[in-house]
Amino acid sequence: MNKDFLIKDASEFVNKEITVLGWVYNLRPSGSIVFLQVRDGSGFIQATVVKNDVKKDVFKEAQKITLETSVEITGLLKEEKRSPTGYEISAKSVIILSLAQDYPIGKKEHGPDFLLKNRHLWLRSKRQWAILRIRNQIIQGINEFLQTEGYTRIDTPIITPSACEGTTTLFEIDYFGQKAYLSQSGQLYLEAAIFSVGKCYDFSPALRAEKSKTRRHLIEFWMMDAEAAFMDFSQMLSFEEELIFFLIERVLKNCREEFKIIERDVKPLESIKKPFARLTYDETVKKLNELGSDIVWGSDLGNDDETMLMTHYQTPVFITHYPAKVKAFYCKKDSGNENLALAADLLAPEGYGEVIGGGQREEDYQKLVDIINKEGLKEKDYEWYLDLRKYGSVIHSGFGVGLERLVAWICKLEHVRESIPFPRLLDRFYP
Amino acid sequence: MNKDFLIKDASEFVNKEITVLGWVYNLRPSGSIVFLQVRDGSGFIQATVVKNDVKKDVFKEAQKITLETSVEITGLLKEEKRSPTGYEISAKSVIILSLAQDYPIGKKEHGPDFLLKNRHLWLRSKRQWAILRIRNQIIQGINEFLQTEGYTRIDTPIITPSACEGTTTLFEIDYFGQKAYLSQSGQLYLEAAIFSVGKCYDFSPALRAEKSKTRRHLIEFWMMDAEAAFMDFSQMLSFEEELIFFLIERVLKNCREEFKIIERDVKPLESIKKPFARLTYDETVKKLNELGSDIVWGSDLGNDDETMLMTHYQTPVFITHYPAKVKAFYCKKDSGNENLALAADLLAPEGYGEVIGGGQREEDYQKLVDIINKEGLKEKDYEWYLDLRKYGSVIHSGFGVGLERLVAWICKLEHVRESIPFPRLLDRFYP
Repeated sequence: MNKDFLIKDASEFVNKEITVLGWVYNLRPSGSIVFLQVRDGSGFIQATVVKNDVKKDVFKEAQKITLETSVEITGLLKEEKRSPTGYEISAKSVIILSLAQDYPIGKKEHGPDFLLKNRHLWLRSKRQWAILRIRNQIIQGINEFLQTEGYTRIDTPIITPSACEGTTTLFEIDYFGQKAYLSQSGQLYLEAAIFSVGKCYDFSPALRAEKSKTRRHLIEFWMMDAEAAFMDFSQMLSFEEELIFFLIERVLKNCREEFKIIERDVKPLESIKKPFARLTYDETVKKLNELGSDIVWGSDLGNDDETMLMTHYQTPVFITHYPAKVKAFYCKKDSGNENLALAADLLAPEGYGEVIGGGQREEDYQKLVDIINKEGLKEKDYEWYLDLRKYGSVIHSGFGVGLERLVAWICKLEHVRESIPFPRLLDRFYP
Repeated sequence: MNKDFLIKDASEFVNKEITVLGWVYNLRPSGSIVFLQVRDGSGFIQATVVKNDVKKDVFKEAQKITLETSVEITGLLKEEKRSPTGYEISAKSVIILSLAQDYPIGKKEHGPDFLLKNRHLWLRSKRQWAILRIRNQIIQGINEFLQTEGYTRIDTPIITPSACEGTTTLFEIDYFGQKAYLSQSGQLYLEAAIFSVGKCYDFSPALRAEKSKTRRHLIEFWMMDAEAAFMDFSQMLSFEEELIFFLIERVLKNCREEFKIIERDVKPLESIKKPFARLTYDETVKKLNELGSDIVWGSDLGNDDETMLMTHYQTPVFITHYPAKVKAFYCKKDSGNENLALAADLLAPEGYGEVIGGGQREEDYQKLVDIINKEGLKEKDYEWYLDLRKYGSVIHSGFGVGLERLVAWICKLEHVRESIPFPRLLDRFYP
């Protein structure tokens, strides 16, 4: 079965006979030539089957081919300037592996409902292929950056006894007779692990039963949480900046072809410079009011606010020093003003919003107990978390990256649903 | 806050003044010298505070230090042959950051129940630190190997509409009024994605409500599933072999110190050679009967069988050609004998059992429909999965690696619960 040729390596096989195994994603038959656009997962290439150059049964076979038929094509690989990929195969033999009938996704426009229902097939499109590969590069980039910086990967659990991000969006399960909940974030667990490995991260699905139906919300999404001992708020902002900058450089280097396919103008990405702009929450509210938003001091930024603000920026922006009451209980307060949290969201430009949320954590045992009680949480649920402040508490900070929002921005997608292979939305968890 | 020194880099700072931020994990006070064993997440080092060499209040501070107190120590870093790490700090100043009181994990032996309840603290032990780091290396190794081999990471969903591995071990959730299930494996979704990217993998939590209480079972575990188009059964076995061999070489190279800490004799790992032994299921049953097992042909290998068999092997063993009826519906049958599945488990030596399960998948539409109906599954639940056999079906194979079992073997752990940061067991999902 092993035919070693992959389309991505075409340049190494010019004027050689190769065999390609793949799928026909486009075809144009004529009386004397069948043009087959073939993909093999690594790339795309055109094969031509010329009536006068091949055996009769080979041409007959080629004429039978339908959209999405799997094929084995052997022939001479040539440079061909008129081909978009620069190469072409002059087929000598064509074998149909499995003939596809009436492939439901055609060239005409399909609505999102149809495409989501057929996500298992829609993934085959050139556009989805390119997005999947950019997503892959971003994931690898995040791992590479953190490993190089000495972070240890610590997998945090999906099944948890209590909430991390508010109790209203929890999925509940029956855990052999006991109530358990699906993780909204692994952060609290990472805070335990920094006492062992110093700096760590997780990267796993987060599940939030949020009744939001916006272009930024998924019920199940991937989140990378990072946490570091002895890191303060300002160091954390710089670290986030380095990470994002590293990722942008990486995708610009590795994903040129993919950006072309999805028609993403990369100039805005290329123009991103460090340091990113920083606005306090105070400044942000003023700015938003000037821009026409009716946001009042004390409330969290809404999706519309983020969009309104970020349409004016070509580079990511940190919003810092949020009102403490809109942030989670574990946020450390600003020493200059106890009403403000040492928390920051990183908003992406070009109208995209939050891609990272993070902050310094409260390391004082008593302050943490007080806020837990004040917010009506059960101290008992956080017993182990409070232990971390009893035994060698240290200054520490961390942040969470929403992978799909990051992918959506970098790929400039209309809706976050295209940024994940199998999206789970308010009204959809199929296929 | 940023003190750039990390203990792991001690060799670069000999005879220099450094500041270490960390935790005291062991201490021995005497009248004239306080010995402090300090860790900072990157490594371990001893600091000595000599009464006659430091200011009075510094020595007093050092005497107050308790187990797990967080400290900032400044002093001269020296080579010291008597120290296990080869270096020592002559402290000039000692600052207590947070004084720990009555740290519950002491030097005496604790039972597993106590340690699991205090997993958030237990992680700080040298042994757990070492295991976490080996686990991290294995995860990075898996990613590196697959990326180098051209596999694209495809994240598969946790929330699914139907079962992948039998319906008896499913966790159910209420998905906004509809029944949904937590993923047991992402394999079926990967089979969809190979038509786009050719070769792919996921790496995520798998959840199985299995009422097993053995040293090999976790309710929530991490699994890497890989799947490739145009890969047949025998190619898959070689690929698995390459992966495991690569991982062993990698940990032997990168984790020498960690293996020493956990007292893992690495000779058995060093002696592993390719190709691994291969036994058919038939041969395995015969061998097991000879060894004293009462296994009868047609039943699956139990934990005890695997242990019995693998105590005799120093190298991993493939068991191939299982009876079709003990394997999942999607397994392709052996062309020579329809009662056998082209499925293989890779069993780890030294008494460890299955670490990988894989096989070639049935690519024929009608055969798959027949088996789905025969096994009493609902054809409707697999509609999208069946689509993959309608539109350009191809030969393909894949396998799933159980991360914790792999870590347990490589670290030679008594129980798989030590191989994951926060284990979920039949009777435990706290902390």
